[in-house]
Amino acid sequence: MNEVDVFIFDCDGVIWRGDSVIDNVKETLAKLRKEGKKCFFVTNNSTKSRAGYKKKFDSLGLDVAAEEIFSSSFAVAAHFEQTKFLEKKPGKKVFVLGEIGVCDELDMIGVPWIGGPQDEGKVAPMQPGGKVDHDHDVGAVVVGFDRHINYYKIQYAQLCINENEDCEFIATNLDAVTHLTDAQEWAGNGSMVGAIKGCTGQEPNLVGKPSSLMIDYIADKENLDRSKICMVGDRLDTDILFGANNGLKTCLVLSGVTSEEKLLSDENKVTPDFYADSIADFFVKEAA
Amino acid sequence: MNEVDVFIFDCDGVIWRGDSVIDNVKETLAKLRKEGKKCFFVTNNSTKSRAGYKKKFDSLGLDVAAEEIFSSSFAVAAHFEQTKFLEKKPGKKVFVLGEIGVCDELDMIGVPWIGGPQDEGKVAPMQPGGKVDHDHDVGAVVVGFDRHINYYKIQYAQLCINENEDCEFIATNLDAVTHLTDAQEWAGNGSMVGAIKGCTGQEPNLVGKPSSLMIDYIADKENLDRSKICMVGDRLDTDILFGANNGLKTCLVLSGVTSEEKLLSDENKVTPDFYADSIADFFVKEAA
Repeated sequence: MNEVDVFIFDCDGVIWRGDSVIDNVKETLAKLRKEGKKCFFVTNNSTKSRAGYKKKFDSLGLDVAAEEIFSSSFAVAAHFEQTKFLEKKPGKKVFVLGEIGVCDELDMIGVPWIGGPQDEGKVAPMQPGGKVDHDHDVGAVVVGFDRHINYYKIQYAQLCINENEDCEFIATNLDAVTHLTDAQEWAGNGSMVGAIKGCTGQEPNLVGKPSSLMIDYIADKENLDRSKICMVGDRLDTDILFGANNGLKTCLVLSGVTSEEKLLSDENKVTPDFYADSIADFFVKEAA
Repeated sequence: MNEVDVFIFDCDGVIWRGDSVIDNVKETLAKLRKEGKKCFFVTNNSTKSRAGYKKKFDSLGLDVAAEEIFSSSFAVAAHFEQTKFLEKKPGKKVFVLGEIGVCDELDMIGVPWIGGPQDEGKVAPMQPGGKVDHDHDVGAVVVGFDRHINYYKIQYAQLCINENEDCEFIATNLDAVTHLTDAQEWAGNGSMVGAIKGCTGQEPNLVGKPSSLMIDYIADKENLDRSKICMVGDRLDTDILFGANNGLKTCLVLSGVTSEEKLLSDENKVTPDFYADSIADFFVKEAA
């Protein structure tokens, strides 16, 4: 704990599970801050913007600033800023196959977009001679988690990527499953990205975990020493690997999808630097 | 021509384009039959059953028997017969993410199924605590082209494949694009299969082209010498490669997606045994 100045927390399975905050997280975050630790919150979920996530933190009674939240929707905007989309592709816009979070983040940086929630329920004209008229000024397609995915959206993305010159294909994340509700695992953005890979033969540029984009952004912006940053997550093959590959300390918590049995099994090849039942144990164990 | 006893025709781009029959196809098929050639018609399209395809041939004025038609919907049924699904998985059923063609073919062989067109417009219950209740007796998921793909269907397939023991994942085909209408290329079943690959991490068993299943079925059932079979198609990387890999003679026709320029370019590594503007030239060239 003393060696760590900054904690980067995965959210789902670490801070909350679905709709409920994990026990004692609020108190633990308060103690960490009291000890001068910086806290950031990363999530591959793209359905909300930073501002949208702040509301979720608020509703769970957690006092977190929007600037501390790194959602993959924000990572899309950070990517467009880093690659200078507006300067390099003047007059071009973005087609969003995804929910409002990505669109809100694009609005924040002034990148024009089409698609998003506007395409819910749209049906492609498939009668003889029918076609989807796509915008030839789409210079990038962003695919994020979308509970309203439909064939119209898939066809629109296909046309932009296959027919528009120099059209980038960006994925917020490739997570196979996600936690929409506590009751079961749900098909994740791997589905939406897989659909567009399958009709274009293209691999996307990934901006969420396990891409290094968000870590680079945090480390550079805050001018941080990576060895003093600890990635805290509940998944070995994403969070812990992501942290280790980016030169961070890593801590697995057992409050999400990974059991202690799985962590300690012979088949598991990913070893975190530390592990705990939940982040609440950060202080319990220090006291022991 | 004299060396070939049997022609296997791809349909789209060879027999028809979208909704229109290609010029002189009717007369050519009649001449081939008059000379004693057997004709089979293979298509990766799974939206119709054999019987459904017969109606399409009829509507275009083409006299073809249902038994001469090998759609990927039929290939699904042939696969379940070959693998003895009913005997080996008694009491089990199939979940169809796809259109009526697959369902009709399953009905023909008495394999029980759920899903298909019944799931159009269904919405997963995503409120707190919500879940999709899936059938634990689903022993196989078939993914075919589906213009009504939605998140409910993706989640249902994900649950069956990830949570049911020994649940097979079958794809009718992996075509990136397809010809729903003449006006443009359309996202193909690669999208639907990609969506399910993306949320399960599983690779499907493929029954349509370029799987050998349909060729094996035709050659075995008809007791044919493969060197006397010619695969006729409009795509180098599917039809021609498929024929060559299965020991057949191959003929590319330029009536579909491949230009003569592309065929003869240095980049192209796939060489058919013959090529022609369309199948109508089979006789024109003989007369020359």
